[in-house]
Amino acid sequence: MKLTVKLLDIENRGVLLHCTDARSMRVRDGDRVQIVDEATGKTAQAHVDTTGSLIEPGVIGVYRPVNATLAVDEGTPVEVRGAERPASLEHIKKKMDGGRFTKDDTVDIVRDIVDDVLSPGEITAYVTASYINGLDMDEVEYLTRATVETGERLHFTRHPIVDKHSIGGVPGNKITLLIAPIIAASGLLIPKTSSRAITGAGGTADLMEVLAPVSFPALEVQQMTEKVGGAIVWGGATNIAPADDKIITYEYPLRIDARGQMIASVMAKKFAVGADLVVIDIPVGRNTKIATAQEGRKLAREFIDLGERLGMRVECALSYGESLVGHTIGPNLEVREALAVLEGATEPNSLIQKSLSLAGIALEMAGKAGPGQGARAAADILRSGKALEKMRQIIEIQGGDPNVKAEDIVPGECRFDVNAPQDGYVIELNNSALVTLARLAGSPYDHGAGLLVHAKKGTRVRKGDPIFTIYADREWRLERAIEVGRTLMPVLVEGMVLERIPHERWV
Amino acid sequence: MKLTVKLLDIENRGVLLHCTDARSMRVRDGDRVQIVDEATGKTAQAHVDTTGSLIEPGVIGVYRPVNATLAVDEGTPVEVRGAERPASLEHIKKKMDGGRFTKDDTVDIVRDIVDDVLSPGEITAYVTASYINGLDMDEVEYLTRATVETGERLHFTRHPIVDKHSIGGVPGNKITLLIAPIIAASGLLIPKTSSRAITGAGGTADLMEVLAPVSFPALEVQQMTEKVGGAIVWGGATNIAPADDKIITYEYPLRIDARGQMIASVMAKKFAVGADLVVIDIPVGRNTKIATAQEGRKLAREFIDLGERLGMRVECALSYGESLVGHTIGPNLEVREALAVLEGATEPNSLIQKSLSLAGIALEMAGKAGPGQGARAAADILRSGKALEKMRQIIEIQGGDPNVKAEDIVPGECRFDVNAPQDGYVIELNNSALVTLARLAGSPYDHGAGLLVHAKKGTRVRKGDPIFTIYADREWRLERAIEVGRTLMPVLVEGMVLERIPHERWV
Repeated sequence: MKLTVKLLDIENRGVLLHCTDARSMRVRDGDRVQIVDEATGKTAQAHVDTTGSLIEPGVIGVYRPVNATLAVDEGTPVEVRGAERPASLEHIKKKMDGGRFTKDDTVDIVRDIVDDVLSPGEITAYVTASYINGLDMDEVEYLTRATVETGERLHFTRHPIVDKHSIGGVPGNKITLLIAPIIAASGLLIPKTSSRAITGAGGTADLMEVLAPVSFPALEVQQMTEKVGGAIVWGGATNIAPADDKIITYEYPLRIDARGQMIASVMAKKFAVGADLVVIDIPVGRNTKIATAQEGRKLAREFIDLGERLGMRVECALSYGESLVGHTIGPNLEVREALAVLEGATEPNSLIQKSLSLAGIALEMAGKAGPGQGARAAADILRSGKALEKMRQIIEIQGGDPNVKAEDIVPGECRFDVNAPQDGYVIELNNSALVTLARLAGSPYDHGAGLLVHAKKGTRVRKGDPIFTIYADREWRLERAIEVGRTLMPVLVEGMVLERIPHERWV
Repeated sequence: MKLTVKLLDIENRGVLLHCTDARSMRVRDGDRVQIVDEATGKTAQAHVDTTGSLIEPGVIGVYRPVNATLAVDEGTPVEVRGAERPASLEHIKKKMDGGRFTKDDTVDIVRDIVDDVLSPGEITAYVTASYINGLDMDEVEYLTRATVETGERLHFTRHPIVDKHSIGGVPGNKITLLIAPIIAASGLLIPKTSSRAITGAGGTADLMEVLAPVSFPALEVQQMTEKVGGAIVWGGATNIAPADDKIITYEYPLRIDARGQMIASVMAKKFAVGADLVVIDIPVGRNTKIATAQEGRKLAREFIDLGERLGMRVECALSYGESLVGHTIGPNLEVREALAVLEGATEPNSLIQKSLSLAGIALEMAGKAGPGQGARAAADILRSGKALEKMRQIIEIQGGDPNVKAEDIVPGECRFDVNAPQDGYVIELNNSALVTLARLAGSPYDHGAGLLVHAKKGTRVRKGDPIFTIYADREWRLERAIEVGRTLMPVLVEGMVLERIPHERWV
C-alpha cells in the first residue's frame, strides 16, 4: 500500500497507521510492516501502532528511530506492507525446544536484532531461551563473531593491542583509570571502550566523563589511541558490537545474566577493537556475580578458550569481590581517588594493588616485563609519574583539561555522616545497599553524589565515629538517600542490637 | 512529578513524555511509569516513549489503552513517577531458573498481565520460560484459577451447563454450528464462547458472524443462553479470561504451543462460564497439534485431571485430524455446509458423524441419553428438525435473520477450479497448504472466500476433474491465491510426476 510519510518525533521503533489502512493491509497493533522508499531503495521494518484520528488514512507516521534507517522527508511516498515472518524466529523457537544455533542461525538473529526486525518480545524470547537452555562454546563463538561483524571495528597497524575487562558487581572499581594510562605509558596501545552504569553507581565511562568527553565514533577512538597510546571512551557512542547493547537492554528488566551471552558480549568488544592481549578481572565472592573461586576458574577457562578460537591471548585474574575497591563510590569521589594515586598517593592499598596486578599481567603478556615482574614494572611506571603524564595526554586528546588535579574534583556540597552506633568492629558493609544509597543520592547522573567509606569491613570503630559519608549535589536527593538508608542497614557493627528501630542506628 | 494530561489516540499501552521530564524522573524509553490521578485515586502503569517536540515539558501524552484504565480528561493533572519493579518479574526469573510457580506467584503474574504492568517483552519471557521449563499440574491449576479470577464469570442458576472445545489444527472444523443447537435442543444450556482465526481460515466466531453478531458482554451471553438454551459468541468480546487472550498474543509470533498453558487456557474459559460437563475434541494425526493417539490420550488425562481439580466433569474424544471436516474451508462455504446439514442434508458424512459423536458424549454425560446411546439421540434431534429450530432461535436472539437458509449463503463470485493433472487417486491433500490458499483468497475477512474440496484423500479422479475450487470476493485476491498455489502443491494425485515445473500441474 502506498502511504505518505509524516515524521513523528517519538523515540520508539514504530510507525503509526490509520486503523482503516492497517485493516486493509491485514496488520494489527504490534505487527511488523516493511517500509520501502522506492526512490532510494532504502527499507526498514517497524512495529505498528494504530490510531483513528491522529493521522489521516493514506498517511504513515514514521517514528524517529525508524527514520534513522529510512532517512525520508515528510511527504515522501513509501510502499508499506505486512512484513514476512523473519527466519530468525524459527531459530529462536529451535533453541526453546532445546536445539543448537548454527553459525547461520546466529547471524540471522544478530542481524535482525541490530536492524530492529525483531520486536522487544522476540528479543526477550531469544535471551530467555538462550539463558535457560544455554549456549555451548561453538554457539558462543558464533554469537561473538556475529556481534563483531554487525558493527564497526578498529584496524590498527601497530600491535599488540591490549584490552582489559572487569566482570561487574564490585562497587568503586575505578581501576581502569589507573590501568589504561600505565599500559599506554609502557608503549602499548589500549583503546578502552567502557560502559555506563546500568544498575551501578558509575561505570568507567561515567567516571571518565568527569575528566573529558567520552562519546566518539569508532574511527576517532582508533586515531586517539594511535596518537597517545590510549583512550577511555563510552562504547555505547561507537557502533562497535551494537547487538550487544540491545541484548543487554532486554536482559536488564529480568536481571538475566546468561553466562554464554556475557562471555560473547565481553569478547566481541575486545575482538572488535582488534585486541591481541586481553586481561579479564573476575571478582569473586558473596554478592558478586561469581560466588566461588571454582566458578571463577571455570569462567576463566571459557574466556581463554574463546580467546583462542578468535586468535586473542586471554589471561584472567580472580580478585576479591566482597569489598569495594578503594574507599569511594560515585563519579567525582572515585575520580578524585584515582587521580590522587596517579599523582603519588600511596593509599588506598586495595585500589593500587589491584590495578598494578592487572596492569602487570598485561605487561608480562606483551613482553614488557619478565614473568612475575609485571606488577613491579607497573608500579615503576606509576611511581615515575609517567602514568600521570599519560593520563593527562589521554584527557587532553579527548577534549578535557590536562591540568586537572585530584583536589579540583570535589564531591557534592550536601553531606551526611553515618556514625557508628556503638564501639565494635565493622562486620558487614553491604555493597548493594551502598550502591543503592549512592544512586539515591544522585550518582552517576549528579557527578558530586556518592559515598566515602571511612571504615571498611574489619575496622575497629568507636561509638560516634563516622563509618561513611553520603554526598549529594542536591539536598532533596540527600534526604531521600538518608530516609531509605534507615531501612537498608548497609553497615553492621559487631554487637549491634538488631532489634532496635532502624533509624536509631543512624544518629 | 506533576504533569498535565494530553490524550493521544494511539493504540499502544504507553505514554509519551518530553525527554527532559523523562530525564528528571530518571526513566528511559521503554521504562515503566506509574500514573496516579489523585482526584479519583485511579492509577495505571504504562511504558514510556519520549519526544523532544511533540509535547511540551510538563505534559504527558496518554495513549488510548492507558486511558481505558485511568479515565482522565484532557488537561487533568496527574502524578507520574518511575514504577517499582513488579514482584512478578522475580517469579518469572524463578521459572527461568527451573523453579515452580506458587499459587501467589501465579496470581501476581496473571494480574500484572491483565493490568498491563508487564511489558510485551516480559510477558514473552513468562511464556518462553513456562514453555521451556514446563508447568506441572498444580501450576496449571493455579494458572487456570488465576485466569478465571481476573476476568468476568457467568453465574447460571439452572444446571448442568455444557461446553465443548476442539483443539485446533484441523481445517473446516465447523462442528460447533451443529453441536451447540443439538445440545440446546435437548434442553441443556450451552453458552459457547469461541475464538476467531489466528492462523486458520475461520474460527467458530468468524463462521457464526456470517449468521449473526457475535460480540456481546458476558452478562448478555448468560441471558441469551438462559432464554434459548445456547449462544455462539466471540469470547474476545467478553471480559472472560482476559489474561488468556494476551498470553496467546505473545505466543503467536513464536508459534509457541505450551501444553500447560494451552490446557489452562481451554479450561479457564470453561470454568468461567460455569460449565459442569465438558467435551474436548482432540484431533490426532500428522499436521495436527497432536501427532499420535498416545499423545492424545496423555493430553486427555490431563484435561480430565484438571477438570476434577476444578469440579468439572470432562470427557475427551480423539478424532481423525488428517483430513478436513466436511468439504469446505472459509466462512460462507462452511456455514452453508453446516446449515444444509441442519436443514436435512445427509452429507458430508465426516461432518455429521463427528458432530453427532461429540454431541452424543455430552448428552450421555448429562443423562439425556443412556450409555452408548448419545450419538443416536443426537441424530434424532438433528433429524427431527429441532436442532435447526434451535439454531434459528440462537441466530435470532443474537440479532441475525432466523429465516436464513443454506442456499442464501453463497461463496464469492470469483472462482478457479484446480483440476486433476492426470488419472489416479488423490494421495495427499495438504491441510496447511489448503488453509494458506483460503487465507490468500481472503478468508476469514472476506466471508465469500474459501475452498470447496471436491475430491478428498483417497478419491479416484480422472484427468481434468476438479479437485477443489478456490472462491474469492475479489479478483486480485483470487489471483494471488492461484499464483502462490502453484508453488504450494496442496494436492498430489498418485503417479503425478513431481519433477515437472509446478505450474503445469494446475492446468
